[in-house]
Amino acid sequence: MARIAEIDGTQPVRGEGRRGRRSGGGADARRALRSSGTVAKKRFIERQIPPYEILSEENLALIEENAETVLNEIGIEFRDDPEALAMWKDAGADVQGERVRFPRGLCRKLCETIPSSFTQHARNPERSVEVGGNNTVFAPVYGPPFVRDLEGGRRYATIQDFQNFVKLAYMSPSVHHSGGTVCEPVDVPVNKRHLDMVYAHLRYSDMPFMGSVTAPERAEDSVAMAKLVFGDDFVENNTVMINLINANSPMTFDGTMLGALKVYARHNQACIVTPFILSGAMAPVTPVGVMTQTLAEALAGLAFTQLVRPGAPAVLGSFASSISMQSGAPTFGTPEPALVLYGMAALARRLGVPFRSGGSLCGSKLPDAQAAHESTQTLMPTVLGGVNFVLHAAGWLEGGLVSSYEKFIIDADQLGMMQTFAGGYDLSENGQAMDAIREVGPGSHFLGCAHTRANFETAFYRSNIADNNSFEQWEADGALDAFQRANGIYKKMLADYEAPALAPSIDEALKAFIAERKASEPDAFS
Amino acid sequence: MARIAEIDGTQPVRGEGRRGRRSGGGADARRALRSSGTVAKKRFIERQIPPYEILSEENLALIEENAETVLNEIGIEFRDDPEALAMWKDAGADVQGERVRFPRGLCRKLCETIPSSFTQHARNPERSVEVGGNNTVFAPVYGPPFVRDLEGGRRYATIQDFQNFVKLAYMSPSVHHSGGTVCEPVDVPVNKRHLDMVYAHLRYSDMPFMGSVTAPERAEDSVAMAKLVFGDDFVENNTVMINLINANSPMTFDGTMLGALKVYARHNQACIVTPFILSGAMAPVTPVGVMTQTLAEALAGLAFTQLVRPGAPAVLGSFASSISMQSGAPTFGTPEPALVLYGMAALARRLGVPFRSGGSLCGSKLPDAQAAHESTQTLMPTVLGGVNFVLHAAGWLEGGLVSSYEKFIIDADQLGMMQTFAGGYDLSENGQAMDAIREVGPGSHFLGCAHTRANFETAFYRSNIADNNSFEQWEADGALDAFQRANGIYKKMLADYEAPALAPSIDEALKAFIAERKASEPDAFS
Repeated sequence: MARIAEIDGTQPVRGEGRRGRRSGGGADARRALRSSGTVAKKRFIERQIPPYEILSEENLALIEENAETVLNEIGIEFRDDPEALAMWKDAGADVQGERVRFPRGLCRKLCETIPSSFTQHARNPERSVEVGGNNTVFAPVYGPPFVRDLEGGRRYATIQDFQNFVKLAYMSPSVHHSGGTVCEPVDVPVNKRHLDMVYAHLRYSDMPFMGSVTAPERAEDSVAMAKLVFGDDFVENNTVMINLINANSPMTFDGTMLGALKVYARHNQACIVTPFILSGAMAPVTPVGVMTQTLAEALAGLAFTQLVRPGAPAVLGSFASSISMQSGAPTFGTPEPALVLYGMAALARRLGVPFRSGGSLCGSKLPDAQAAHESTQTLMPTVLGGVNFVLHAAGWLEGGLVSSYEKFIIDADQLGMMQTFAGGYDLSENGQAMDAIREVGPGSHFLGCAHTRANFETAFYRSNIADNNSFEQWEADGALDAFQRANGIYKKMLADYEAPALAPSIDEALKAFIAERKASEPDAFS
Repeated sequence: MARIAEIDGTQPVRGEGRRGRRSGGGADARRALRSSGTVAKKRFIERQIPPYEILSEENLALIEENAETVLNEIGIEFRDDPEALAMWKDAGADVQGERVRFPRGLCRKLCETIPSSFTQHARNPERSVEVGGNNTVFAPVYGPPFVRDLEGGRRYATIQDFQNFVKLAYMSPSVHHSGGTVCEPVDVPVNKRHLDMVYAHLRYSDMPFMGSVTAPERAEDSVAMAKLVFGDDFVENNTVMINLINANSPMTFDGTMLGALKVYARHNQACIVTPFILSGAMAPVTPVGVMTQTLAEALAGLAFTQLVRPGAPAVLGSFASSISMQSGAPTFGTPEPALVLYGMAALARRLGVPFRSGGSLCGSKLPDAQAAHESTQTLMPTVLGGVNFVLHAAGWLEGGLVSSYEKFIIDADQLGMMQTFAGGYDLSENGQAMDAIREVGPGSHFLGCAHTRANFETAFYRSNIADNNSFEQWEADGALDAFQRANGIYKKMLADYEAPALAPSIDEALKAFIAERKASEPDAFS
């Protein structure tokens, strides 16, 4: 079963040594171009294509009405958090025990102070991202306790695996974010691993990242480490972390998640409020039913962030999959979650808040055709639907139980394709190419014409994983499949990796903080 | 390189024994449900989702203007066909040698008599398809000289392979059409194989199919065989074959294709006029350039069908891929062809004619992750763009050089997903599921609630190729990938195959026709 995993936040240096040797620059940009076609590293995608809208205004209004009915008649439970209940009572909600029922429209009204778009600052300002609007940010897989590669098979993840995935994200031209728990380093005590994870994001990348949500005090650690890097005032008045707050669907938030939410919102850090739905288990089996419940739960959680701190950045999240009738396991890449995604994206746009969903999800055990179909059947709706923040964009395997090295490489190539697609059409005179058509004329070919020569280098997205050689050449190269080719690519990337610069004073301050926190309590492994 | 292959048309019985034991019926429908989830065999897809529109009216009008400029200033060559040139001269075009230049708007005006949608009749009336409007028809791969499966590897195709793919299409719930040259039976003489191919479509399936286009006389054979089955008058006044007429891009039609086009149009059979473009070779490297040239070529070819017979059914086709900068081979599933597809679909809608494009295209040598990504990156635009007739929807491998048994199975599953997706949302009270949300409430689960029990059996698309078992169960089952699982499925399908009924008198008449035609000329193998 897909897990809902955690992290622990530390964060990247800002203001010092921040250029590192990341992309943007000449040699690296050229290397990125060579290794992955025409896609140079971008901060994020500014979509030049419209969202694909399936549902009518009337249909969307119906779902919104139904969600208000859920909030008003059934309500949402806020468990193990008396403070939250008191805040809701003050806000005008009907609180009975831990059940909160909302006057129609209250949650939507409270959400008005959520920014429609916000900047998440990276320690390298050239890697800061915009979350919201027409922008899309790709972040790696989040949460798996296992890793897999071709030779090693499936095994528990370690902190070294964690560092490796941070490095791969850093080097991938179309991955815009370092993510959070890129895998769960189970070799580090559970109450201390957040410190090592955040340090890895900081030391081995300079991209934006995610804070720990597994306990309020770990969220506080994340904020404290962010302040060592970005400065106290900067953190309080800006957003340097984005954090995953999952609802306990159906219609419940638990104390742990509420605790983390409150920490982050109070410090102006972004919360992604995500109902995590396996349709048929945590919500009805119908897509419209899933959307209704998801919207109700998200509205309650998002509104709560604004009770904590009006104007704090927040993101409406939706994670929906179906379940197998045979095994009860979650399934991915099927039509029903795609319908949910398109609908939720439209509902988030109507609410005026950024939206998180999708990714490169699959249930397959291997990076095979099943994995690829399911991933693309999720990723294309993600991009066409207009998702703003995409967790699990690269590396997700086996329902989120496994971070796959090879799948990370294969997925990252697909992200490049979608980045190119989202750039839309070139309708300039050069794009119209009338001169080329005039020059060549009937019965000839365009291979050598001036327009082709001028544009060929950047005309087509170039995959670094697809083999487009002749059959004979492919056989001579060993008749490898994509899985095998990706193995060679990830190893070469890790061998070629160079860390971005980090000011020694910051590095020392972080190490000291980690050492002190680790010494302050005994190890825990569960 | 992708080939543009041929077929040979014979055709299905109509009026006699037509029910066969195809789908629709009880036991077979249930078997289809079991073997491929919730998708029962449908005649075709009636899309309940809107097309995804990326380009504005203004942008589309610009491309149309440019296409008119190509037709007017550069013109199109109609080669080796003096009759065609005379017809164009009569129609008011400027004919210089074989070059035809068109007054602005002439071709578009001539296209007004093309039906916006038409019925292609099958010998089993329950399998007739509607081509046009909101409908989508999936047909198998067309043209490969090779086949591949897991054990046999890549080898030249035979007539037995051809029959096998006809059988697989017939048994696949989401394949709506028997197609044409599902593979090229190279063991049969090139001048006679069309007879055996058409016979296979007729004998082993009862679905609609495609006629031969490799020579005008083979097109005539196709029509003659259709008349043996459907009757002379029926064929002349209805459409029982759909036929692939490719332009020799850039801006050229050759005598062979024009000859086949004339035969089919005169007999009221449908022509798919398809500029076959490898961008950078047969057209400019930019998507808008490809669209401009494709539209110009298609307009000329479509208009020509109406000079032959006003009102004859015709389909605007677009086949566009990019080429690898390394190997010069065609590439598939990249962003640029997807942009072309969405744009051409919109242009076909504006012209008011049915549209053919897309499929499950890939360049991979194996049914691996590359094949799957590329195929889905083609198939989703196909469905979201609103393609009406989808050739190569199942089985295409290695740039169209190979018909793959296992990929046919994997693709057919994806077609089922797209068929379900195209059904859109259930917004009924049952779809809204408010009773379920009320019944379950916060903190419980939906697994046993009344709504789930009432809907679970049909709620989710069920893949027959995806493995959603636990990791442990999957390992116990042999740790197979999708390629290996598909191998078992295709073999079981062929073992379970039962032919649809065919009246003995018709079968004899067809066999006699084939024997006579085969005896009338010596074998040719090139």
